[in-house]
Formats: sequence, C-alpha cells, structure tokens
Amino acid sequence: MALVRSDIKRLLDYKLCLLRFKELGVSTIFSHNLGEVSGVSAVQVRKDFSLYGIKGKKRGGYNIDKLLEALNKIFGDARKNIIIVGMGNIGKALSQYNERFIKKNLHIVAGFDIDPAKQNKSYGIPIYPLDKLTEVVQREHVSTAIIAVPFQTAQEICNILIAAGIKGILNFAPVILKVPNDIVIDNVNLSNKLEGIIYNIGG
Amino acid sequence: MALVRSDIKRLLDYKLCLLRFKELGVSTIFSHNLGEVSGVSAVQVRKDFSLYGIKGKKRGGYNIDKLLEALNKIFGDARKNIIIVGMGNIGKALSQYNERFIKKNLHIVAGFDIDPAKQNKSYGIPIYPLDKLTEVVQREHVSTAIIAVPFQTAQEICNILIAAGIKGILNFAPVILKVPNDIVIDNVNLSNKLEGIIYNIGG
Repeated sequence: MALVRSDIKRLLDYKLCLLRFKELGVSTIFSHNLGEVSGVSAVQVRKDFSLYGIKGKKRGGYNIDKLLEALNKIFGDARKNIIIVGMGNIGKALSQYNERFIKKNLHIVAGFDIDPAKQNKSYGIPIYPLDKLTEVVQREHVSTAIIAVPFQTAQEICNILIAAGIKGILNFAPVILKVPNDIVIDNVNLSNKLEGIIYNIGG
Repeated sequence: MALVRSDIKRLLDYKLCLLRFKELGVSTIFSHNLGEVSGVSAVQVRKDFSLYGIKGKKRGGYNIDKLLEALNKIFGDARKNIIIVGMGNIGKALSQYNERFIKKNLHIVAGFDIDPAKQNKSYGIPIYPLDKLTEVVQREHVSTAIIAVPFQTAQEICNILIAAGIKGILNFAPVILKVPNDIVIDNVNLSNKLEGIIYNIGG
C-alpha cells in the first residue's frame, strides 16, 4: 500500500513517540496516550494501526515493540547511510544530530566541503573534498544526501549527487532544485516556513 | 481568500524566485521562466496570478515589482521580529541566516539560552537568559519564535513562549508540542524528513 505524505508524517510521528516511550522503559501503550503525545485522536491511532493488522488489547493497550516492528516493516529498519554536502553552519549543526539519527538507524557517514580547512576539523564524521564524492557514495552505499551549500552552487551539487547515484535529497539551500522524476527531493526553506507561519497567524 | 498549505508553499516559492531574479537586475518575467525556476507549470503560474487579478503582457511578461507587491499584499511586508530559544548548534546556525531572512523583512532580534557562557558570545544577535523572554517579546513586538532546545525542555519553553504572547512557533526539537488551537506551529523533524525521503525512494 502506498502512503501519502500525511500518512507518512503521522506514522513517523508515532515511531518517534514510541521510541521515546521505549527509552523511558514503557512496554505497552494505549491509543489515547499515543494520540495525545503525537497530537492526533485515539480513533486515528487505532484506525492507522488496524490498517496494518495491528491489534491492541482492551485492557493492556498496544505492545510497543510490536508496533515498532510493524512500523519498521513499513519504513525499513536496515541501516541507511547519509552524507552532507556543505559543512557551513547548517551542515555542522546537522552533523551533531548524528547520535539522534543513529537511534533510527540513519547514519551520517561523511561530509563534503570545498574548503580544505574544514576537511581537517573534527565534526564527528570524516570531511572530504568534493572530488571524493562519487567514491564515498558508492563505497558506503549512500542513497540519500543533505545539501547545505549556498544557493549559487546547490543545483551543481545536486547534479553531481544524482550522477553519483544518490536517489533522495534533503535540500536546505534556498532554491528550488530541478531533479529527474525518479529522484525524491524535500526542500526545507526556512524563511518560507517562517513566512507561512506568519501568514497563518494573520500577522 | 484563505490559502491552503500547498498554495502558501507555491506562492512563497514564487516570491523567493522573484526576489532572486530581482537581485540579478531582471525587471520582467514570463510565466514559463518563473514556473521553470519554481518547479511548477507555466499554466499553474498564470492561474495563481490571475486569481489575484495580476495580468501579464503577452510580449513582455509580468512586471516583477508588481508581482512582489501583490505577494506582499497577501503575506504582508511589514517587518516581523523573531526570536530563537536555544543557542546550540541549530540555534547558532539559524542566527547566521539572519542576513538572508532580512531580505524578506524577517528579523531575528534575539536569542535565549540558559547557559551564561552563550549569553556573552557574539552570534550577531543579543543572547539573553530565559527570564528576559517575556520582556523582550513584548518590547520588540515578537509574534513568532523558533524553538531549538533539547526535546526534554521543549514543551516547557513552548508554554513560556505562549504565555509571553507568541502566536507562531517553528519547532526543531524532535517532539510533537501541544499548543492551544489559536497557536500556529510547524514541527521540522529532520530525522522524520530523512525517513520520509528514504520511504519514497523505496529504500
């Protein structure tokens, strides 16, 4: 069953909350608790899980491990290697997220920057020059990349990534990148997000 | 006319592209050029603008200043003051975006952190302790805040912000925050974004 964007978001929110409960040592959860923490109704939670054949117990709720197992079946739980291109402020900040990402089996395995000074600094991940990109992508079986370069070079970097075999891109450069139809791209434009919020508060 | 999320996104993408063209010294633009750069069809561009009574000339295209004026009428072009709570890696990275935000009249006027060491460092914006939050929000007429604190304290910070009068929140903490109905919140969960991309590439 193919999920639409809003389904994906909701299920990933559940996963985030379930991992959080699991870290606290909780083993079972009721739909209304999960709904409360995820910001949706208990009815929606039950509806979502019943679609995947997951049943809770009236008195005991859902088993968290079983829910996570089911969500991992949907989203995959194999290790995914990710790279960051551009080790400026955003790239550096994201490299520090690695510990959190690893809990979801997302591993930032390398960063890339044209600045040789950045290639020597320690970001917790190795930083390579751009001409090593294809080699690292292929050696580490990387399918997903984060673009955190200035907008002027973002499209060029995007093209290099796709030529190297990257299939999914999270783009922080404030430009709408052109990609072939088989490439998945998510543009995170922070000033647009702020303007969208301000529009919605009627400001 | 109230805009839905996808309309807001598209119109803000146009605005971003138009500002970019304007910076290059371009004064008029054709729908197919704007569509190409924004990643939508020329038909969609013309449809969007005609809804707002904006007409292009067959031979000359659209006047960029007039388009920006129309978009500013929709989204407002008054100065908006924004604060960041949490000056860790993400907060610091966002504070460096200020120059870019200012082009859209979004001004990050202050940061907040519980760490006194960060209150002395220069991030290009003044950094205050948390107990100054309400005072700064009111003095600077801030309606929108960015949360970039660890997830454990994010809900508490969110409640403090709302009590201080904040109406819109961009949340980077990996937790789904609970807010009253009249508060606009946008949660940017980066690991969920990566997992969503990986799901869509079938990885």
